[in-house]
Amino acid sequence: MAQIDQFSPTVRTTLKRLPDRGSYDREQVYRILDEGFVCHVGFVVDGQPFVIPTAYGRVGDKLYIHGSAASRAMRSLVGGIPVCVTVTLVDGLVLARSAFHHSINYRSVVILGAATMVEAAEEKMVALRAFTEHVVPGRWDDVREPNEQELKGTTVLALPLVEVSAKVRTGPPKDDEEDMAIPAWAGELPLRIAAGEPIADPHLASGVKPPDYVTRYSRQKQTANGLK
Amino acid sequence: MAQIDQFSPTVRTTLKRLPDRGSYDREQVYRILDEGFVCHVGFVVDGQPFVIPTAYGRVGDKLYIHGSAASRAMRSLVGGIPVCVTVTLVDGLVLARSAFHHSINYRSVVILGAATMVEAAEEKMVALRAFTEHVVPGRWDDVREPNEQELKGTTVLALPLVEVSAKVRTGPPKDDEEDMAIPAWAGELPLRIAAGEPIADPHLASGVKPPDYVTRYSRQKQTANGLK
Repeated sequence: MAQIDQFSPTVRTTLKRLPDRGSYDREQVYRILDEGFVCHVGFVVDGQPFVIPTAYGRVGDKLYIHGSAASRAMRSLVGGIPVCVTVTLVDGLVLARSAFHHSINYRSVVILGAATMVEAAEEKMVALRAFTEHVVPGRWDDVREPNEQELKGTTVLALPLVEVSAKVRTGPPKDDEEDMAIPAWAGELPLRIAAGEPIADPHLASGVKPPDYVTRYSRQKQTANGLK
Repeated sequence: MAQIDQFSPTVRTTLKRLPDRGSYDREQVYRILDEGFVCHVGFVVDGQPFVIPTAYGRVGDKLYIHGSAASRAMRSLVGGIPVCVTVTLVDGLVLARSAFHHSINYRSVVILGAATMVEAAEEKMVALRAFTEHVVPGRWDDVREPNEQELKGTTVLALPLVEVSAKVRTGPPKDDEEDMAIPAWAGELPLRIAAGEPIADPHLASGVKPPDYVTRYSRQKQTANGLK
């Protein structure tokens, strides 16, 4: 890879506490972004922060989000105001012998910057394809592509992956030495996103079976399958 | 219940688009907050929004978050600056016949306001108990309670549930009439948080079995079991 394999820390992305949980490793950031599919977008209107959940896609060092051209969030964001996009994956609960040392194993990425509106129809289509394939890999080829009217009604924003940091906690609890004799069970409870049985649309023609990318859906394997 | 069963919408919490997805129903807001356990806290420093994931607890109409007294986020928030706390539950993927109508079934709550620091040791302890019990119901009685030093080193913030809205999408895709003949499978793929096999702490005494609240862990049943 020609790219430098680390993002450069800035004053705003340098972890002051627990710096061993911080990471600027490009591959790790990509892996977290590719496994997740819902981000939380933070922006400020009249001094009030808003945090809105939305799906996203990634192509190289660009994160794409989109929404109705009519939405309040999109109308605020197209102005190039400062944003923070955070993606969090919860990997498990950490149960310690003291209430104080309970924790959560997680991986998160925080991206600071300003989003720019994607204007060119061609890049817009690339972004929407990335977006669909990010959430359901394999889906794009089976469905009708956006038409001109839909493209016009959709605002696509690109956020460059420049000021980026990851934070990761893994492993067992860290109890104090004097608590080790407490008889409580201690350890980790792994959590993951699991897919249930697909529910066919009521209007679906009989005999149409869900494809493999639905019946075998798993976020954990997105790193291998995802757009890189 | 003596309380009014609806939060009052404000200009900032009124949904302008797709208003049928909005809700101010108190019980629904409680249910979403009780099923989730990680929120995204948005706040502004020098004009830059930050969005930080953290666990939370709820007692009545207060949401509690906590963190190290030394953390940047906590030090910013204790000043009573405006915050936005968002909790998002992803219930499933919505696969339509057109790329445009793909969606996500979700429930989210957005809380606007200012957090206040909980100073009294008694309320601080109530909050920490709520916090532990929110993430792992039944855990508090099995572990060592926070001692004075731990209480001092923990900043607990309370955010009143006043300016609150929920947003919910459920059900099948909404395809355009002219797309109904497209042969793609369409419908919903339900997603949920699943717990794996508990991993014992390497220092755990042999023979200590994980309790029921670990082996039968499920977020979906928190509504019934949660603190109300």
